[in-house]
Amino acid sequence: MSGQVIAVSFVLPALVAFVLSTILTKQLIPVLHKLKFGQYEREDGMASHQKKAGTPTMGGIAWLLALILTCLVFLKGNPMMLPVLFLTVGFGVIGFLDDYLKIAKKENEGLTVVQKLIGQIAVTGIFGAWMLYGAKIDTSVILPFTGGKVWTMSPVLFWIFLFFVVIGTVNGTNFTDGLDGLSSSVSVVVALFFGVSSLMASAFGVSVISGAMAGALMGFLVYNAHPAKVFMGDTGSLALGGFVAGSALMLGQPIFIVIAGFIYLMEVVSVILQVGYFKLTHGKRLFKMAPIHHHFELLGWSETKVVTVFTCVTVLLCLIAICGL
Amino acid sequence: MSGQVIAVSFVLPALVAFVLSTILTKQLIPVLHKLKFGQYEREDGMASHQKKAGTPTMGGIAWLLALILTCLVFLKGNPMMLPVLFLTVGFGVIGFLDDYLKIAKKENEGLTVVQKLIGQIAVTGIFGAWMLYGAKIDTSVILPFTGGKVWTMSPVLFWIFLFFVVIGTVNGTNFTDGLDGLSSSVSVVVALFFGVSSLMASAFGVSVISGAMAGALMGFLVYNAHPAKVFMGDTGSLALGGFVAGSALMLGQPIFIVIAGFIYLMEVVSVILQVGYFKLTHGKRLFKMAPIHHHFELLGWSETKVVTVFTCVTVLLCLIAICGL
Repeated sequence: MSGQVIAVSFVLPALVAFVLSTILTKQLIPVLHKLKFGQYEREDGMASHQKKAGTPTMGGIAWLLALILTCLVFLKGNPMMLPVLFLTVGFGVIGFLDDYLKIAKKENEGLTVVQKLIGQIAVTGIFGAWMLYGAKIDTSVILPFTGGKVWTMSPVLFWIFLFFVVIGTVNGTNFTDGLDGLSSSVSVVVALFFGVSSLMASAFGVSVISGAMAGALMGFLVYNAHPAKVFMGDTGSLALGGFVAGSALMLGQPIFIVIAGFIYLMEVVSVILQVGYFKLTHGKRLFKMAPIHHHFELLGWSETKVVTVFTCVTVLLCLIAICGL
Repeated sequence: MSGQVIAVSFVLPALVAFVLSTILTKQLIPVLHKLKFGQYEREDGMASHQKKAGTPTMGGIAWLLALILTCLVFLKGNPMMLPVLFLTVGFGVIGFLDDYLKIAKKENEGLTVVQKLIGQIAVTGIFGAWMLYGAKIDTSVILPFTGGKVWTMSPVLFWIFLFFVVIGTVNGTNFTDGLDGLSSSVSVVVALFFGVSSLMASAFGVSVISGAMAGALMGFLVYNAHPAKVFMGDTGSLALGGFVAGSALMLGQPIFIVIAGFIYLMEVVSVILQVGYFKLTHGKRLFKMAPIHHHFELLGWSETKVVTVFTCVTVLLCLIAICGL
């Protein structure tokens, strides 16, 4: 593959999104402060996190805007990015509404469970239809480490699978977003993985949005690195899940989320296990605290150590995933 | 390129080195404490860094050992890694002697300037001879963004160039090593770049040591991330320079150090400019403090923000460098 193709389909979008995201995040922070869109810390949460109260959240608006603008610039000839962009922005909007009701309106609950469910089903359904009938992607998924063998599902099974992948991934990215720079650092690496895997598959629509996502998140990290000046909020963390699930599905690589996105999986599974174990044993805990990044903090790891280790583990897992393509 | 080739020549070495480096670093820290091989902080240095005094240094011994062991495991069929490994370990030994004399013996000066110079010339000279006459690499260097055009130098010019590249890079990695996790994070990315570029060039000897270096540094980062439990010392930071210069020269890509290793370049140039400007103006300063990472700290950036931003910039520059291969 020529350097020019890699540049136009991956690296330039990353650079453009990085610059836009840095500028937009810097502009957004004082606005969020003025609107008092600050973080609320649970009083029963991590004691060491109480100082985060008041740090503005919903910063995901800035990098999501940078991502959208970058994708529009590189849209020509890359229509395959559109379903992924739709799923990303769709979940970003659901997260935004939830953030907005919780924080701006100071309502405790945000969206109701039913409202959230309807929103998620609608966005995922439109994405699935767009992917299968619009973009004409078939129902085959690549099996890792088989030299490219695929499992072709029946349409009904694939629809069930698709909902499971999207909802599971979105919950994973949502739970991962709990330490300064954690979900952004891990997701930069995951976005770079999908960039490489889509370049290898000549799926340039996906490589453009993957590059743009990596760049946008790195621009956000300038202000989200510990000690964070801004958080992404559900606006950002749900959008991330939409991006990861959408890219993986468009590439026929949803099973690779288990490898490259292992941290997301571990975070959501830790919550399920913790809650389940608590109920089964009438009050015992499996982890010191869930999601699991808090467990490591309570083992004495600094916040930055947890972020560094989770990011390094993701780098190694993404390298493994590339071997399994 | 098949996943199996990428696995054996790049990813497996990274995994092996990561595991070894984590174990060895953990074992080494209490030993360094017991021997009182602690960091000495200049009293005229960054006030906020005084708390680092006493943190053990020379941790580079652990990851360098992990690197050597991993390279030996994957040596068969990859003799091209040997000159790079020699340059890495050679500078590591010079750094170790300097660290040891300064810290363990509490001598102020470490090696004398003449001793250092002789050591550096000897190690670089042996590497150059090994590369040119042993490994039969020619004197061509790839010009970035020319579609692979090369500049073939005369032997005399190439020897001068080679010394300039090695000594310049080693000074760069040495000055970069001044914040928790800075040189390790930046160098993980640079090692991944040389891994990718050597895989693209089918130079599997270099891809093995690059993978091993990325893994060894990530293992070290587990303990070197802010707040650092251990520093790499000159043992590590000089070895890093040997690795970067050696890999680049073996691949015919020394000019790419300017792009992928821009942070190293910026660090060493900031020191030269600061000292030169100070002398020329009889006491004025160009930066608030050199090397330049301290300048950003004095602008109000947290240590972790400097590390995050320098690492993200390196990611973007390495992506650019890949396009220019």
